[in-house]
Amino acid sequence: MQEIDFIKRMFQELAGFVCRKHASRGQVGVTSKSEANDLLTEVDLAVQDRLVEAIGKEFPGDVIVAEERGLARIPDDPSVRCWVIDPIDGTQNFVRGIFPVFGISVAFAVDGRPVVGGVAVPGIALPGVATSQSVGVFFAEKGAGAYLNDSPIRVSSVDSVSLARVEVDFSGRSQRDETLARCAEILRRSGQIRCNCATVVALCSVAVGEMDAFAHVSLNPWDYAAGQIIVEEAGGRASRLDGSPLMLFENRHGVLISNGHVHDELVSLIPS
Amino acid sequence: MQEIDFIKRMFQELAGFVCRKHASRGQVGVTSKSEANDLLTEVDLAVQDRLVEAIGKEFPGDVIVAEERGLARIPDDPSVRCWVIDPIDGTQNFVRGIFPVFGISVAFAVDGRPVVGGVAVPGIALPGVATSQSVGVFFAEKGAGAYLNDSPIRVSSVDSVSLARVEVDFSGRSQRDETLARCAEILRRSGQIRCNCATVVALCSVAVGEMDAFAHVSLNPWDYAAGQIIVEEAGGRASRLDGSPLMLFENRHGVLISNGHVHDELVSLIPS
Repeated sequence: MQEIDFIKRMFQELAGFVCRKHASRGQVGVTSKSEANDLLTEVDLAVQDRLVEAIGKEFPGDVIVAEERGLARIPDDPSVRCWVIDPIDGTQNFVRGIFPVFGISVAFAVDGRPVVGGVAVPGIALPGVATSQSVGVFFAEKGAGAYLNDSPIRVSSVDSVSLARVEVDFSGRSQRDETLARCAEILRRSGQIRCNCATVVALCSVAVGEMDAFAHVSLNPWDYAAGQIIVEEAGGRASRLDGSPLMLFENRHGVLISNGHVHDELVSLIPS
Repeated sequence: MQEIDFIKRMFQELAGFVCRKHASRGQVGVTSKSEANDLLTEVDLAVQDRLVEAIGKEFPGDVIVAEERGLARIPDDPSVRCWVIDPIDGTQNFVRGIFPVFGISVAFAVDGRPVVGGVAVPGIALPGVATSQSVGVFFAEKGAGAYLNDSPIRVSSVDSVSLARVEVDFSGRSQRDETLARCAEILRRSGQIRCNCATVVALCSVAVGEMDAFAHVSLNPWDYAAGQIIVEEAGGRASRLDGSPLMLFENRHGVLISNGHVHDELVSLIPS
Protein backbone atom coordinates (compact mmCIF):
# COMPACT_ATOMS: atom_id res chain seq x y z
CA MET A 1 0.00 0.00 0.00
CA GLN A 2 1.47 3.32 -0.94
CA GLU A 3 0.52 4.93 2.40
CA ILE A 4 2.70 2.56 4.42
CA ASP A 5 5.64 3.00 2.06
CA PHE A 6 5.24 6.74 2.42
CA ILE A 7 5.38 6.49 6.24
CA LYS A 8 8.51 4.33 6.12
CA ARG A 9 10.20 6.77 3.75
CA MET A 10 9.34 9.71 5.98
CA PHE A 11 10.68 7.93 9.08
CA GLN A 12 13.97 7.27 7.29
CA GLU A 13 14.24 10.98 6.66
CA LEU A 14 13.01 12.19 10.06
CA ALA A 15 14.44 9.68 12.56
CA GLY A 16 18.03 10.82 12.12
CA PHE A 17 17.00 14.45 12.53
CA VAL A 18 15.09 13.67 15.73
CA CYS A 19 17.94 11.59 17.18
CA ARG A 20 20.45 14.36 16.48
CA LYS A 21 18.18 16.95 18.10
CA HIS A 22 17.71 14.69 21.13
CA ALA A 23 21.47 14.24 21.47
CA SER A 24 21.82 18.03 21.72
CA ARG A 25 18.54 18.67 23.49
CA GLY A 26 20.06 21.25 25.81
CA GLN A 27 19.95 23.56 22.77
CA VAL A 28 16.36 22.71 21.74
CA GLY A 29 13.79 25.47 22.24
CA VAL A 30 10.95 24.42 24.58
CA THR A 31 7.68 26.20 25.40
CA SER A 32 4.58 25.31 27.43
CA LYS A 33 1.05 24.95 26.08
CA SER A 34 -2.10 24.38 28.17
CA GLU A 35 -0.24 23.86 31.45
CA ALA A 36 3.33 24.14 32.70
CA ASN A 37 4.12 20.51 31.90
CA ASP A 38 2.38 20.41 28.50
CA LEU A 39 5.55 20.97 26.50
CA LEU A 40 6.20 21.83 22.89
CA THR A 41 9.63 21.86 21.26
CA GLU A 42 10.90 23.14 17.96
CA VAL A 43 11.42 19.47 17.05
CA ASP A 44 7.67 18.71 17.36
CA LEU A 45 6.97 21.60 15.00
CA ALA A 46 9.69 20.74 12.48
CA VAL A 47 8.62 17.09 12.29
CA GLN A 48 4.95 17.97 11.87
CA ASP A 49 5.70 20.64 9.24
CA ARG A 50 7.74 18.20 7.17
CA LEU A 51 5.04 15.50 7.37
CA VAL A 52 2.26 17.95 6.48
CA GLU A 53 4.25 19.28 3.53
CA ALA A 54 5.01 15.78 2.21
CA ILE A 55 1.43 14.52 2.61
CA GLY A 56 0.18 17.61 0.76
CA LYS A 57 2.43 16.75 -2.17
CA GLU A 58 1.94 12.98 -2.22
CA PHE A 59 -1.73 12.76 -1.25
CA PRO A 60 -3.32 16.10 -2.18
CA GLY A 61 -6.82 16.49 -0.81
CA ASP A 62 -6.32 14.18 2.18
CA VAL A 63 -7.33 15.67 5.52
CA ILE A 64 -4.64 16.05 8.18
CA VAL A 65 -5.26 15.91 11.93
CA ALA A 66 -2.17 16.63 14.03
CA GLU A 67 -1.28 17.72 17.53
CA GLU A 68 0.25 21.11 16.78
CA ARG A 69 -0.33 24.35 14.79
CA GLY A 70 -4.13 24.37 14.91
CA LEU A 71 -4.51 20.97 13.24
CA ALA A 72 -5.77 19.41 16.52
CA ARG A 73 -9.33 19.11 15.25
CA ILE A 74 -11.94 16.56 14.30
CA PRO A 75 -12.69 16.31 10.54
CA ASP A 76 -16.14 17.62 9.55
CA ASP A 77 -16.70 14.42 7.59
CA PRO A 78 -15.14 11.51 9.54
CA SER A 79 -15.40 9.21 6.51
CA VAL A 80 -12.71 11.08 4.59
CA ARG A 81 -9.16 9.88 3.90
CA CYS A 82 -7.33 11.27 6.93
CA TRP A 83 -3.77 11.36 8.25
CA VAL A 84 -3.40 11.46 12.04
CA ILE A 85 -0.04 12.70 13.31
CA ASP A 86 1.72 13.12 16.63
CA PRO A 87 5.11 14.53 15.59
CA ILE A 88 6.72 13.71 18.98
CA ASP A 89 4.66 11.78 21.52
CA GLY A 90 6.40 11.87 24.90
CA THR A 91 7.73 15.41 24.50
CA GLN A 92 8.30 15.60 28.28
CA ASN A 93 10.62 12.59 27.95
CA PHE A 94 12.34 14.12 24.95
CA VAL A 95 13.16 17.11 27.14
CA ARG A 96 14.11 15.19 30.31
CA GLY A 97 14.87 11.59 31.22
CA ILE A 98 17.80 9.20 30.93
CA PHE A 99 16.09 6.95 28.37
CA PRO A 100 14.63 8.25 25.06
CA VAL A 101 10.99 7.28 25.74
CA PHE A 102 9.29 9.10 22.86
CA GLY A 103 8.20 8.37 19.32
CA ILE A 104 6.98 9.80 16.02
CA SER A 105 3.45 8.55 15.27
CA VAL A 106 1.72 8.64 11.87
CA ALA A 107 -1.55 6.90 11.02
CA PHE A 108 -3.74 6.82 7.95
CA ALA A 109 -7.46 6.44 8.72
CA VAL A 110 -10.61 5.85 6.71
CA ASP A 111 -14.14 6.04 8.15
CA GLY A 112 -12.75 7.02 11.56
CA ARG A 113 -10.61 3.92 11.97
CA PRO A 114 -6.85 3.61 11.47
CA VAL A 115 -5.93 1.28 8.61
CA VAL A 116 -2.19 2.00 8.45
CA GLY A 117 0.08 3.04 11.30
CA GLY A 118 3.75 3.66 11.91
CA VAL A 119 5.68 4.62 15.06
CA ALA A 120 9.41 5.34 15.14
CA VAL A 121 11.10 4.91 18.55
CA PRO A 122 14.84 5.63 18.94
CA GLY A 123 17.26 3.68 21.07
CA ILE A 124 15.16 0.69 22.05
CA ALA A 125 16.91 -2.38 23.40
CA LEU A 126 15.30 -5.59 22.22
CA PRO A 127 17.09 -8.81 21.41
CA GLY A 128 17.77 -8.85 17.68
CA VAL A 129 17.24 -5.11 17.25
CA ALA A 130 20.35 -2.99 16.85
CA THR A 131 20.41 -0.26 19.51
CA SER A 132 22.43 2.96 19.78
CA GLN A 133 21.48 5.53 17.17
CA SER A 134 19.26 2.99 15.44
CA VAL A 135 15.53 3.45 15.47
CA GLY A 136 12.82 0.87 16.04
CA VAL A 137 10.16 1.36 13.38
CA PHE A 138 6.85 -0.28 14.27
CA PHE A 139 4.26 -0.45 11.52
CA ALA A 140 1.07 -2.22 10.56
CA GLU A 141 -1.52 -2.31 7.85
CA LYS A 142 -5.03 -3.63 8.31
CA GLY A 143 -5.07 -7.34 7.55
CA ALA A 144 -1.33 -7.56 6.88
CA GLY A 145 0.10 -7.95 10.39
CA ALA A 146 2.39 -5.80 12.50
CA TYR A 147 6.15 -5.45 12.24
CA LEU A 148 9.17 -4.07 14.07
CA ASN A 149 11.67 -3.09 11.41
CA ASP A 150 11.32 -6.16 9.18
CA SER A 151 10.25 -8.74 11.75
CA PRO A 152 6.65 -9.70 12.48
CA ILE A 153 5.61 -8.95 16.07
CA ARG A 154 3.03 -10.47 18.35
CA VAL A 155 1.42 -9.52 21.68
CA SER A 156 2.22 -11.50 24.84
CA SER A 157 0.29 -14.54 26.06
CA VAL A 158 -0.09 -13.32 29.67
CA ASP A 159 -3.69 -14.06 30.61
CA SER A 160 -4.12 -12.83 34.20
CA VAL A 161 -4.04 -9.25 35.47
CA SER A 162 -2.17 -10.47 38.56
CA LEU A 163 0.75 -11.42 36.30
CA ALA A 164 0.41 -8.59 33.82
CA ARG A 165 2.80 -5.70 33.21
CA VAL A 166 0.40 -2.75 32.88
CA GLU A 167 1.09 0.86 31.99
CA VAL A 168 -1.27 3.32 33.69
CA ASP A 169 -0.71 6.76 32.23
CA PHE A 170 -1.10 9.46 34.92
CA SER A 171 -1.08 12.17 32.24
CA GLY A 172 -1.32 15.82 33.33
CA ARG A 173 -2.46 17.17 36.69
CA SER A 174 -5.98 17.87 35.47
CA GLN A 175 -6.52 14.13 34.83
CA ARG A 176 -5.09 12.72 38.05
CA ASP A 177 -8.32 12.55 40.07
CA GLU A 178 -10.04 10.66 37.28
CA THR A 179 -7.02 8.37 36.80
CA LEU A 180 -6.93 7.50 40.51
CA ALA A 181 -10.69 6.95 40.60
CA ARG A 182 -10.99 4.78 37.50
CA CYS A 183 -7.65 2.95 37.62
CA ALA A 184 -7.37 2.29 41.38
CA GLU A 185 -8.20 -1.41 41.08
CA ILE A 186 -5.84 -1.84 38.14
CA LEU A 187 -3.13 -0.16 40.22
CA ARG A 188 -3.87 -2.50 43.14
CA ARG A 189 -4.14 -5.77 41.26
CA SER A 190 -1.76 -5.74 38.31
CA GLY A 191 1.42 -7.75 38.52
CA GLN A 192 3.58 -4.77 37.55
CA ILE A 193 2.74 -1.09 37.15
CA ARG A 194 4.62 1.25 34.86
CA CYS A 195 4.08 4.87 33.82
CA ASN A 196 6.15 6.58 31.14
CA CYS A 197 3.65 9.06 29.70
CA ALA A 198 4.45 8.29 26.08
CA THR A 199 1.36 6.55 24.74
CA VAL A 200 2.81 5.55 21.38
CA VAL A 201 5.78 3.87 23.07
CA ALA A 202 3.48 2.03 25.49
CA LEU A 203 1.29 0.79 22.64
CA CYS A 204 4.29 -0.45 20.68
CA SER A 205 5.48 -2.18 23.86
CA VAL A 206 2.15 -4.01 24.05
CA ALA A 207 2.34 -4.90 20.34
CA VAL A 208 5.80 -6.41 20.67
CA GLY A 209 4.86 -8.37 23.82
CA GLU A 210 7.02 -6.41 26.25
CA MET A 211 4.01 -4.91 28.07
CA ASP A 212 0.57 -6.48 28.51
CA ALA A 213 -1.82 -3.52 28.72
CA PHE A 214 -2.16 0.26 28.76
CA ALA A 215 -4.86 2.50 30.24
CA HIS A 216 -5.41 6.25 29.93
CA VAL A 217 -8.54 8.16 30.98
CA SER A 218 -8.55 10.72 28.16
CA LEU A 219 -6.70 10.62 24.86
CA ASN A 220 -6.77 12.49 21.59
CA PRO A 221 -6.84 10.64 18.24
CA TRP A 222 -3.18 11.36 17.46
CA ASP A 223 -2.12 9.75 20.74
CA TYR A 224 -3.33 6.29 19.78
CA ALA A 225 -4.31 6.08 16.07
CA ALA A 226 -1.07 4.48 14.86
CA GLY A 227 -0.52 2.45 18.03
CA GLN A 228 -4.05 1.07 17.89
CA ILE A 229 -3.69 -0.52 14.44
CA ILE A 230 -0.20 -1.79 15.33
CA VAL A 231 -1.55 -3.51 18.48
CA GLU A 232 -4.61 -4.89 16.69
CA GLU A 233 -2.51 -6.32 13.87
CA ALA A 234 -0.14 -7.83 16.46
CA GLY A 235 -3.10 -9.77 17.88
CA GLY A 236 -4.16 -7.38 20.65
CA ARG A 237 -7.30 -5.43 21.38
CA ALA A 238 -8.24 -1.76 21.67
CA SER A 239 -11.39 -0.28 23.21
CA ARG A 240 -12.71 2.48 25.38
CA LEU A 241 -12.32 1.90 29.12
CA ASP A 242 -15.78 0.30 29.24
CA GLY A 243 -14.90 -2.15 26.47
CA SER A 244 -16.92 -0.35 23.76
CA PRO A 245 -15.41 0.30 20.30
CA LEU A 246 -12.77 2.98 19.79
CA MET A 247 -13.66 5.52 17.12
CA LEU A 248 -10.96 8.07 16.35
CA PHE A 249 -13.11 11.13 15.87
CA GLU A 250 -15.47 11.08 18.85
CA ASN A 251 -13.59 13.62 20.96
CA ARG A 252 -11.27 12.75 23.84
CA HIS A 253 -12.12 9.63 25.78
CA GLY A 254 -10.53 6.84 27.79
CA VAL A 255 -8.55 4.13 26.02
CA LEU A 256 -7.70 0.58 27.04
CA ILE A 257 -5.23 -1.35 24.90
CA SER A 258 -4.08 -4.86 25.72
CA ASN A 259 -2.79 -8.16 24.49
CA GLY A 260 -6.46 -9.22 24.34
CA HIS A 261 -6.10 -11.97 26.96
CA VAL A 262 -6.38 -9.60 29.96
CA HIS A 263 -8.81 -7.17 28.32
CA ASP A 264 -12.14 -8.28 29.79
CA GLU A 265 -10.64 -8.66 33.26
CA LEU A 266 -9.26 -5.10 33.08
CA VAL A 267 -12.61 -3.72 31.85
CA SER A 268 -14.29 -5.37 34.87
CA LEU A 269 -11.91 -3.48 37.19
CA ILE A 270 -12.73 -0.02 35.81
CA PRO A 271 -15.76 1.79 37.27
CA SER A 272 -17.67 3.87 34.73
CA MET B 1 39.74 5.93 48.03
CA GLN B 2 40.43 2.34 47.21
CA GLU B 3 36.77 1.31 47.61
CA ILE B 4 35.60 3.57 44.79
CA ASP B 5 38.39 2.38 42.50
CA PHE B 6 37.38 -1.18 43.26
CA ILE B 7 33.74 -0.49 42.28
CA LYS B 8 34.79 1.14 39.02
CA ARG B 9 37.05 -1.80 38.18
CA MET B 10 34.28 -4.29 38.91
CA PHE B 11 31.80 -2.35 36.71
CA GLN B 12 34.28 -2.42 33.84
CA GLU B 13 34.37 -6.18 34.16
CA LEU B 14 30.65 -6.77 34.78
CA ALA B 15 28.89 -4.24 32.57
CA GLY B 16 29.84 -5.93 29.33
CA PHE B 17 28.68 -9.30 30.67
CA VAL B 18 25.33 -7.85 31.76
CA CYS B 19 24.80 -6.06 28.42
CA ARG B 20 25.53 -9.24 26.48
CA LYS B 21 23.14 -11.24 28.66
CA HIS B 22 20.46 -8.57 28.19
CA ALA B 23 20.93 -8.66 24.42
CA SER B 24 20.18 -12.40 24.50
CA ARG B 25 17.72 -12.31 27.37
CA GLY B 26 15.39 -14.79 25.72
CA GLN B 27 17.95 -17.41 26.76
CA VAL B 28 18.38 -16.17 30.34
CA GLY B 29 16.97 -18.43 33.07
CA VAL B 30 14.31 -16.68 35.20
CA THR B 31 12.62 -17.83 38.42
CA SER B 32 10.19 -16.21 40.87
CA LYS B 33 10.89 -15.49 44.53
CA SER B 34 8.33 -14.19 47.06
CA GLU B 35 5.57 -13.57 44.50
CA ALA B 36 5.03 -14.24 40.81
CA ASN B 37 6.51 -10.90 39.77
CA ASP B 38 9.47 -10.94 42.17
CA LEU B 39 11.94 -12.22 39.58
CA LEU B 40 15.43 -13.62 39.83
CA THR B 41 17.68 -14.37 36.87
CA GLU B 42 20.93 -16.23 36.49
CA VAL B 43 22.46 -12.81 35.74
CA ASP B 44 21.56 -11.45 39.21
CA LEU B 45 23.28 -14.47 40.75
CA ALA B 46 26.38 -14.37 38.54
CA VAL B 47 26.92 -10.64 39.16
CA GLN B 48 26.48 -11.01 42.91
CA ASP B 49 28.77 -14.05 43.09
CA ARG B 50 31.54 -12.23 41.26
CA LEU B 51 31.23 -9.14 43.48
CA VAL B 52 31.19 -11.23 46.68
CA GLU B 53 34.24 -13.21 45.56
CA ALA B 54 36.18 -10.05 44.65
CA ILE B 55 35.29 -8.22 47.88
CA GLY B 56 36.37 -11.28 49.87
CA LYS B 57 39.78 -11.14 48.19
CA GLU B 58 40.32 -7.37 48.21
CA PHE B 59 38.68 -6.48 51.54
CA PRO B 60 38.79 -9.62 53.69
CA GLY B 61 36.72 -9.31 56.85
CA ASP B 62 34.26 -6.75 55.43
CA VAL B 63 30.60 -7.66 55.89
CA ILE B 64 28.48 -8.11 52.75
CA VAL B 65 24.73 -7.41 52.54
CA ALA B 66 23.21 -8.34 49.20
CA GLU B 67 19.83 -9.10 47.72
CA GLU B 68 20.32 -12.77 46.83
CA ARG B 69 21.65 -16.08 48.21
CA GLY B 70 20.80 -15.52 51.89
CA LEU B 71 22.85 -12.32 52.16
CA ALA B 72 19.68 -10.21 52.50
CA ARG B 73 20.26 -9.52 56.18
CA ILE B 74 21.05 -6.74 58.61
CA PRO B 75 24.59 -6.87 60.09
CA ASP B 76 24.68 -7.73 63.82
CA ASP B 77 26.96 -4.75 64.37
CA PRO B 78 25.82 -1.90 62.08
CA SER B 79 29.05 0.04 62.69
CA VAL B 80 31.15 -2.45 60.71
CA ARG B 81 32.68 -1.90 57.28
CA CYS B 82 29.91 -3.16 55.05
CA TRP B 83 29.29 -3.63 51.33
CA VAL B 84 25.67 -3.31 50.18
CA ILE B 85 24.90 -4.88 46.80
CA ASP B 86 21.97 -5.15 44.44
CA PRO B 87 23.41 -7.17 41.55
CA ILE B 88 20.57 -6.20 39.17
CA ASP B 89 17.99 -3.68 40.39
CA GLY B 90 15.05 -3.62 37.99
CA THR B 91 15.15 -7.35 37.23
CA GLN B 92 11.58 -7.16 35.89
CA ASN B 93 12.80 -4.60 33.35
CA PHE B 94 15.82 -6.73 32.51
CA VAL B 95 13.39 -9.52 31.61
CA ARG B 96 10.80 -7.37 29.77
CA GLY B 97 10.62 -3.85 28.40
CA ILE B 98 11.83 -2.00 25.34
CA PHE B 99 14.32 0.15 27.26
CA PRO B 100 17.04 -1.30 29.54
CA VAL B 101 15.83 0.27 32.80
CA PHE B 102 18.02 -1.61 35.28
CA GLY B 103 21.34 -1.15 37.01
CA ILE B 104 24.09 -2.78 39.06
CA SER B 105 24.31 -1.11 42.48
CA VAL B 106 27.26 -1.34 44.89
CA ALA B 107 27.72 0.75 48.03
CA PHE B 108 30.28 0.77 50.80
CA ALA B 109 28.88 1.81 54.19
CA VAL B 110 30.30 2.64 57.59
CA ASP B 111 28.19 3.17 60.72
CA GLY B 112 25.01 2.41 58.79
CA ARG B 113 25.50 5.17 56.24
CA PRO B 114 26.76 4.84 52.66
CA VAL B 115 30.07 6.63 52.09
CA VAL B 116 30.83 5.33 48.60
CA GLY B 117 28.36 4.31 45.92
CA GLY B 118 28.36 3.23 42.31
CA VAL B 119 25.56 2.38 39.90
CA ALA B 120 26.08 1.11 36.34
CA VAL B 121 23.19 1.70 33.92
CA PRO B 122 23.43 0.48 30.32
CA GLY B 123 22.12 2.27 27.28
CA ILE B 124 21.23 5.64 28.73
CA ALA B 125 20.73 8.56 26.37
CA LEU B 126 22.04 11.83 27.78
CA PRO B 127 23.68 14.62 25.83
CA GLY B 128 27.42 14.09 25.95
CA VAL B 129 27.16 10.45 27.02
CA ALA B 130 27.85 7.85 24.34
CA THR B 131 24.88 5.49 24.03
CA SER B 132 24.58 2.06 22.40
CA GLN B 133 26.49 -0.65 24.25
CA SER B 134 28.07 1.99 26.45
CA VAL B 135 27.25 2.10 30.12
CA GLY B 136 26.56 5.10 32.31
CA VAL B 137 28.55 4.69 35.51
CA PHE B 138 27.30 6.93 38.32
CA PHE B 139 29.49 7.15 41.40
CA ALA B 140 30.07 9.25 44.48
CA GLU B 141 32.20 9.39 47.56
CA LYS B 142 31.28 11.29 50.69
CA GLY B 143 32.58 14.84 50.44
CA ALA B 144 33.99 14.40 46.93
CA GLY B 145 30.93 15.00 44.74
CA ALA B 146 28.99 12.79 42.33
CA TYR B 147 29.92 11.83 38.78
CA LEU B 148 28.51 10.25 35.64
CA ASN B 149 31.44 8.58 33.91
CA ASP B 150 34.01 11.36 34.36
CA SER B 151 31.69 14.37 34.51
CA PRO B 152 30.42 15.96 37.73
CA ILE B 153 26.64 15.83 38.05
CA ARG B 154 24.14 17.98 39.88
CA VAL B 155 20.46 17.70 40.84
CA SER B 156 17.87 19.91 39.15
CA SER B 157 16.77 23.33 40.39
CA VAL B 158 13.00 22.66 40.13
CA ASP B 159 11.51 24.04 43.34
CA SER B 160 7.77 23.34 43.15
CA VAL B 161 6.01 19.98 43.24
CA SER B 162 3.55 21.27 40.62
CA LEU B 163 6.46 21.48 38.15
CA ALA B 164 8.37 18.43 39.36
CA ARG B 165 8.97 15.18 37.53
CA VAL B 166 8.39 12.61 40.29
CA GLU B 167 8.82 8.85 40.25
CA VAL B 168 6.36 7.01 42.48
CA ASP B 169 7.35 3.35 42.68
CA PHE B 170 4.26 1.12 42.82
CA SER B 171 6.46 -1.88 43.71
CA GLY B 172 4.78 -5.28 44.15
CA ARG B 173 1.10 -6.02 44.72
CA SER B 174 1.51 -6.32 48.50
CA GLN B 175 2.58 -2.66 48.68
CA ARG B 176 -0.04 -1.08 46.45
CA ASP B 177 -2.60 -0.17 49.12
CA GLU B 178 0.05 1.61 51.14
CA THR B 179 1.45 3.32 48.04
CA LEU B 180 -2.00 4.62 47.06
CA ALA B 181 -2.72 5.76 50.61
CA ARG B 182 0.56 7.53 51.28
CA CYS B 183 1.36 8.84 47.80
CA ALA B 184 -2.14 9.91 46.64
CA GLU B 185 -1.43 13.62 47.06
CA ILE B 186 1.94 13.32 45.34
CA LEU B 187 0.19 11.52 42.47
CA ARG B 188 -2.43 14.29 42.28
CA ARG B 189 -0.17 17.32 42.53
CA SER B 190 3.16 16.53 40.86
CA GLY B 191 3.88 18.06 37.48
CA GLN B 192 4.77 14.69 35.97
CA ILE B 193 4.44 11.15 37.32
CA ARG B 194 6.67 8.28 36.26
CA CYS B 195 7.01 4.69 37.47
CA ASN B 196 9.75 2.37 36.25
CA CYS B 197 10.29 0.15 39.29
CA ALA B 198 14.07 0.33 39.18
CA THR B 199 15.04 2.34 42.26
CA VAL B 200 18.73 2.68 41.43
CA VAL B 201 17.92 4.09 38.00
CA ALA B 202 15.42 6.54 39.48
CA LEU B 203 17.94 7.74 42.06
CA CYS B 204 20.62 8.26 39.41
CA SER B 205 18.03 10.16 37.37
CA VAL B 206 17.48 12.50 40.33
CA ALA B 207 21.24 12.87 40.83
CA VAL B 208 21.82 13.88 37.21
CA GLY B 209 18.90 16.33 37.22
CA GLU B 210 16.64 14.36 34.84
CA MET B 211 14.07 13.58 37.56
CA ASP B 212 13.22 15.70 40.60
CA ALA B 213 12.11 13.19 43.24
CA PHE B 214 11.42 9.54 44.02
CA ALA B 215 9.11 7.94 46.60
CA HIS B 216 8.75 4.30 47.67
CA VAL B 217 6.84 3.05 50.71
CA SER B 218 9.17 0.19 51.64
CA LEU B 219 12.74 -0.39 50.53
CA ASN B 220 15.62 -2.63 51.52
CA PRO B 221 19.13 -1.21 52.09
CA TRP B 222 20.50 -2.57 48.80
CA ASP B 223 17.77 -0.75 46.86
CA TYR B 224 18.97 2.72 47.82
CA ALA B 225 22.41 2.60 49.53
CA ALA B 226 24.46 3.53 46.45
CA GLY B 227 21.81 5.82 44.98
CA GLN B 228 21.47 7.71 48.27
CA ILE B 229 25.11 8.78 48.46
CA ILE B 230 25.13 9.60 44.74
CA VAL B 231 22.07 11.88 45.15
CA GLU B 232 23.43 13.49 48.33
CA GLU B 233 26.79 14.22 46.73
CA ALA B 234 24.96 15.66 43.69
CA GLY B 235 23.31 18.18 46.01
CA GLY B 236 20.06 16.33 46.74
CA ARG B 237 18.44 15.01 49.87
CA ALA B 238 17.41 11.58 51.17
CA SER B 239 15.08 10.79 54.07
CA ARG B 240 12.31 8.56 55.24
CA LEU B 241 8.86 9.54 54.00
CA ASP B 242 8.31 11.66 57.14
CA GLY B 243 11.55 13.57 56.56
CA SER B 244 13.50 11.78 59.30
CA PRO B 245 17.05 10.48 58.66
CA LEU B 246 17.62 7.39 56.56
CA MET B 247 19.65 4.69 58.30
CA LEU B 248 20.55 1.70 56.16
CA PHE B 249 20.14 -1.04 58.73
CA GLU B 250 16.81 -0.26 60.38
CA ASN B 251 14.72 -2.78 58.42
CA ARG B 252 12.53 -1.92 55.45
CA HIS B 253 10.96 1.51 55.46
CA GLY B 254 9.74 4.24 53.14
CA VAL B 255 12.25 6.38 51.28
CA LEU B 256 11.97 9.86 49.80
CA ILE B 257 14.83 11.11 47.61
CA SER B 258 14.77 14.46 45.90
CA ASN B 259 16.72 17.36 44.50
CA GLY B 260 16.32 18.95 47.95
CA HIS B 261 14.26 21.90 46.72
CA VAL B 262 10.95 20.00 46.65
CA HIS B 263 11.70 17.78 49.64
CA ASP B 264 9.79 19.57 52.41
CA GLU B 265 6.77 20.13 50.18
CA LEU B 266 6.67 16.42 49.32
CA VAL B 267 7.00 15.42 53.00
CA SER B 268 4.02 17.66 53.78
CA LEU B 269 1.92 15.73 51.21
CA ILE B 270 2.58 12.30 52.73
CA PRO B 271 0.32 11.17 55.60
CA SER B 272 2.09 9.11 58.26
